Amino acid sequence: MNDTVLVFRTTLDVRWGDMDAYAHVNNARYATYVEETRLRWFASFEGAWRTGEYEPVIAAQTINYRRALEWPARIDVDLLLERRGGSSLTLGFRIAAHGDPDRLHADGNSVLVWTDPRTRRSTPLPAAVLRALPGGA
Amino acid sequence: MNDTVLVFRTTLDVRWGDMDAYAHVNNARYATYVEETRLRWFASFEGAWRTGEYEPVIAAQTINYRRALEWPARIDVDLLLERRGGSSLTLGFRIAAHGDPDRLHADGNSVLVWTDPRTRRSTPLPAAVLRALPGGA
Amino acid sequence: MNDTVLVFRTTLDVRWGDMDAYAHVNNARYATYVEETRLRWFASFEGAWRTGEYEPVIAAQTINYRRALEWPARIDVDLLLERRGGSSLTLGFRIAAHGDPDRLHADGNSVLVWTDPRTRRSTPLPAAVLRALPGGA
Amino acid sequence: MNDTVLVFRTTLDVRWGDMDAYAHVNNARYATYVEETRLRWFASFEGAWRTGEYEPVIAAQTINYRRALEWPARIDVDLLLERRGGSSLTLGFRIAAHGDPDRLHADGNSVLVWTDPRTRRSTPLPAAVLRALPGGA
Repeated sequence: MNDTVLVFRTTLDVRWGDMDAYAHVNNARYATYVEETRLRWFASFEGAWRTGEYEPVIAAQTINYRRALEWPARIDVDLLLERRGGSSLTLGFRIAAHGDPDRLHADGNSVLVWTDPRTRRSTPLPAAVLRALPGGA
Repeated sequence: MNDTVLVFRTTLDVRWGDMDAYAHVNNARYATYVEETRLRWFASFEGAWRTGEYEPVIAAQTINYRRALEWPARIDVDLLLERRGGSSLTLGFRIAAHGDPDRLHADGNSVLVWTDPRTRRSTPLPAAVLRALPGGA
Repeated sequence: MNDTVLVFRTTLDVRWGDMDAYAHVNNARYATYVEETRLRWFASFEGAWRTGEYEPVIAAQTINYRRALEWPARIDVDLLLERRGGSSLTLGFRIAAHGDPDRLHADGNSVLVWTDPRTRRSTPLPAAVLRALPGGA
Repeated sequence: MNDTVLVFRTTLDVRWGDMDAYAHVNNARYATYVEETRLRWFASFEGAWRTGEYEPVIAAQTINYRRALEWPARIDVDLLLERRGGSSLTLGFRIAAHGDPDRLHADGNSVLVWTDPRTRRSTPLPAAVLRALPGGA
C-alpha cells in the first residue's frame, strides 16, 4: 500500500444502533461508514459524478476487520487511491479512531466502475472525478 | 379497536441483525416490519397506488411495545383499517408470533396521507387503494 | 407542549444510507435518531441508569413526520420531559434542522419504563435518572 | 472455487427497506444476508459454537457485486467451505435468485477466526464446528 495517495478524509460518529447483539459495531456497518465517506467525497466534487448517463457501481469490496469498535466512538475514515483505470477506481480505505491513526479498526478497498445505467456498460471516468484525483485534469 | 377490519396479513422472518446491543429486536426495526407489510399490501393492489402525481406519505406512527422479540423468530403482521378519510388512511397493525396471535409483540397505527409530490398538497385516495379496502369501489 | 422542559439537546449527522428508495430519510431512522439522543443523554448521567437489576424499556413511541429530510443534513434533536411517573418517563422529542429550530422534521414522544430484567416488573426510577431531571433530587 | 463444498443453503426475503436512494439493495445489506445465513448455519449445529471461552470473529470479508437486486425478491444464499485452518474457516458464499442459481447477485468469502473473548487470542475450532464440516469428526 506504499504507493497509495490519500484523497479524502472525514470524521463520523458511531451510533449506538450500529452495534449488534454482541455489543460491537456490526460488520455490515463498516461498509456504511465507507459509503458515507465516499458520498461526502463525491459531494465535494466540482461537476457531476452521477447523471442519467453514468453512475458509479460497486463491483467489489474487501474489508479487513482489525479491532472491534464500540459506541460511543468517533472515527476518521481515509480514502486512498490505489488504482485508476479508464472506467474504474480502486479506493483503499482506513477506519481509525478519531485523531489516532494507529488505532486502526478496519481497512480494505472498494472497486468502483462508472457505468451507463441504460446499457449497463462501463463508461469513461467523468471529468469531475478525474479532476478530484491526485494530478487530476 | 372493535370496529377495525383486517385488510392484510403477512409473515416475516426476524433477522439476527435486527437485534441491538441489548440482544432484543431494536425498537426501530418494528417500523421496518410494518413498512414491509404495508409495501407488500400495496404491491398486491390492482392499479397504481403511487405515481408521479400522488404518493402515500407517513404523517404519524405510534408503536406500543408489548413483548420483547429475539432472533430466531417468525412473525405475523396484520394491517387493520381504523379510519378512512378523503386523502388518508389510518392503518392499525399487530405484530405477533407466527401462528400465535395472542403472543403479541407490538401494536399501534400509522396515518398515511396521499400527497402530490410536486405541490406537497393532499390528493384523493387513488382508485386502486379504494378498491383494496373493505367495501371498496 | 407548554409545560415541557428541555432536558437534553444533541446534534447528529444524517447518513446517506439513512435514505430509502424514495430518496428521503426512511421513517424508521427517526427512531434511531431519537434513540441515539436518548443514549447520549443517559451516558451523560452521573451514576447508573442501567444495571442487572433495572433497565429502561420502551413501552410506546409516537412519531409525527412534519417535513421530509434528505442527505446531506445535520439535525438537532431535543429531548423534553413531558411526564415523570414513579417508574416511567414520557420524553418528548423534536428533530429540527441544525441551528434552525423552526424547521421541524419530526416530533413526538417516547414512554420509558424502568424494569427489572429478571422479573419484567417495573422498578422505581434510578437515582441517577432523578438527578438528571429538572429539579431532580 | 473448484474444490469448495456446499455446507449450508438458506432462503431469505429481501425487504423493501434494504434498498437505498438508488432503488437497489444497498451494498452493506449483502453482508447482512451473509450474516443471517451464517447464523442460521451455526444455529443448526449440535453443540456450542460460541461460549464465554470462544467465539467466531470476522477477520475479513470480500463481496463481489455481480448483478443489482431490487425488492421484491427472494434469494438463496449458499455457504461453501473454502479453507479450514486450526482456528479459522474461510467460507465462500453465493447469493442468487431463489431457485435460479445461475442468476448470481453476489459472491465472495468471509474469514472467521475463533477467538477467546478474554484474551483476544485464537482458539481451536470448537468440536461443534468440526462436526458440521464435510468429513467432520
